Amino acid sequence: MSLNQLSEVKVNGGRLLRVEHESRSCNGNMTFAVFLPPQAAKKEVPALYWLSGLTCNDENFSQKAGAFTTAAELGMAIIMPDTSPRDAGVVGEDEAYDLGTGAGFYVNATQAPWSIAYNMYSYVTEELPALITANYAISDQAAISGHSMGGHGALICALKNPGKYASVSAFAPITSPSQCPWGQKGFTAYLGSDETTWSEWDANQLVQSNRAAGIAPQALLIDQGSSDPFYADQLMPSLFASTCESLAYPLDYREREGYDHSYYYISSFIAEHLRYHAKHLGLTV
Amino acid sequence: MSLNQLSEVKVNGGRLLRVEHESRSCNGNMTFAVFLPPQAAKKEVPALYWLSGLTCNDENFSQKAGAFTTAAELGMAIIMPDTSPRDAGVVGEDEAYDLGTGAGFYVNATQAPWSIAYNMYSYVTEELPALITANYAISDQAAISGHSMGGHGALICALKNPGKYASVSAFAPITSPSQCPWGQKGFTAYLGSDETTWSEWDANQLVQSNRAAGIAPQALLIDQGSSDPFYADQLMPSLFASTCESLAYPLDYREREGYDHSYYYISSFIAEHLRYHAKHLGLTV
Repeated sequence: MSLNQLSEVKVNGGRLLRVEHESRSCNGNMTFAVFLPPQAAKKEVPALYWLSGLTCNDENFSQKAGAFTTAAELGMAIIMPDTSPRDAGVVGEDEAYDLGTGAGFYVNATQAPWSIAYNMYSYVTEELPALITANYAISDQAAISGHSMGGHGALICALKNPGKYASVSAFAPITSPSQCPWGQKGFTAYLGSDETTWSEWDANQLVQSNRAAGIAPQALLIDQGSSDPFYADQLMPSLFASTCESLAYPLDYREREGYDHSYYYISSFIAEHLRYHAKHLGLTV
Repeated sequence: MSLNQLSEVKVNGGRLLRVEHESRSCNGNMTFAVFLPPQAAKKEVPALYWLSGLTCNDENFSQKAGAFTTAAELGMAIIMPDTSPRDAGVVGEDEAYDLGTGAGFYVNATQAPWSIAYNMYSYVTEELPALITANYAISDQAAISGHSMGGHGALICALKNPGKYASVSAFAPITSPSQCPWGQKGFTAYLGSDETTWSEWDANQLVQSNRAAGIAPQALLIDQGSSDPFYADQLMPSLFASTCESLAYPLDYREREGYDHSYYYISSFIAEHLRYHAKHLGLTV
């Protein structure tokens, strides 16, 4: 698979690369970014996958999160995929901010016309990691995190793949897409109107099914601003917390008084999340 | 003077405000941002004025510099003015990225039509500080810093006002606008073609005239990436360093191997600058 490096910039002693490539999963060109900490010049380092929210691409996190200072200190790579295919040629892909371009929801679409390209789940959990470990000084030790739609993505990628990620964290995640307007719109388009097919893509249901199947709990941190305008209608942290509590599923839930849904909020706590993941990845914190 | 607060967001335990107001100096509406660290809830704190570069407004720094983590820790406010008047109605103000809107060069224009509004020097050194100390829990203890055109701005504001700023630092500043294309274009428009009038707005000449006048040296830090594409033609750090050396003017010059002109570069070293200013402002570092 050939990679086309679009740019490289030095930051915090490491390297931030933007790379495009032909993606099988997404049936076209995809761009991702990777931050290589200074330690990667000498040895393989573990990685955090960061999944962004609606309307974002890799640059929102790399420009606004302020994460590289701590990642460089810890020796952690950060992989920043896009949030959907771009220019996939699917009718309607550019009509709304919450469906299609910038809104892949980290599922594998089963419904035409989306299914030809909107397979972000396979892209993020299989295609991209294979490409990363083959081309960079990055080991297969990984953690995953994300924001909003990307928080949902991080949760389902981890819960659907027990043992694959050392830890998962999420900022203001959509915890139950089956039950909120953003999720219902996306899932109806990508997965169809039979809601029974949605449960395998819904974190609130996955913790229940994992528990029922006796799967060992995933190290799981959820971060939520109390002044987030999407708190009750879209994100539903209380629902998820109470599901976890009823199952005795360990959840590290951190509510932040007065914080909103923005990257200012993320930048305030990203170092805390990186240290959480570093601990689970066995790095010196 | 009435202030209109456009937004407030919580970040790193502090408050980031965007505010607009009618400016006398700039003959119209101006927007600035102010970061109030958590300590400002209880007492007056000192401030760093940050002057941005060509094309920027207050948001480039607030979104991309990653400065608030350290500013919150130190108890330092950060004031982020715009880089020029906006919609001043001056013919030609929107024709180029390096003149007019987004390119005020922190001078007081003497030439029509610019002089009616393009008085960023008075705005930054007098009007804005008066408004800040009158309206926020911010003392008159101040330091100043900036990037590129804003690095030039920080240097001249400090050198023209001995004792006003505890310290000045600059990332990749235009050190001698009289001698580079960006500066020559701006100065010709704002100050006229008589180059003898330019010297009072040129850091490389101000260190010389201050030295000749026996003015005590200003605590001065210049930061420069070695891979900055504007290094030789526009910024001329070597010229400035050699002027300081020939005058035995103390200069803390830090060249950073492999860094470019971007906010990734700034974000890599902003904490170091904030600690430098904190020390000069008498804060606990």
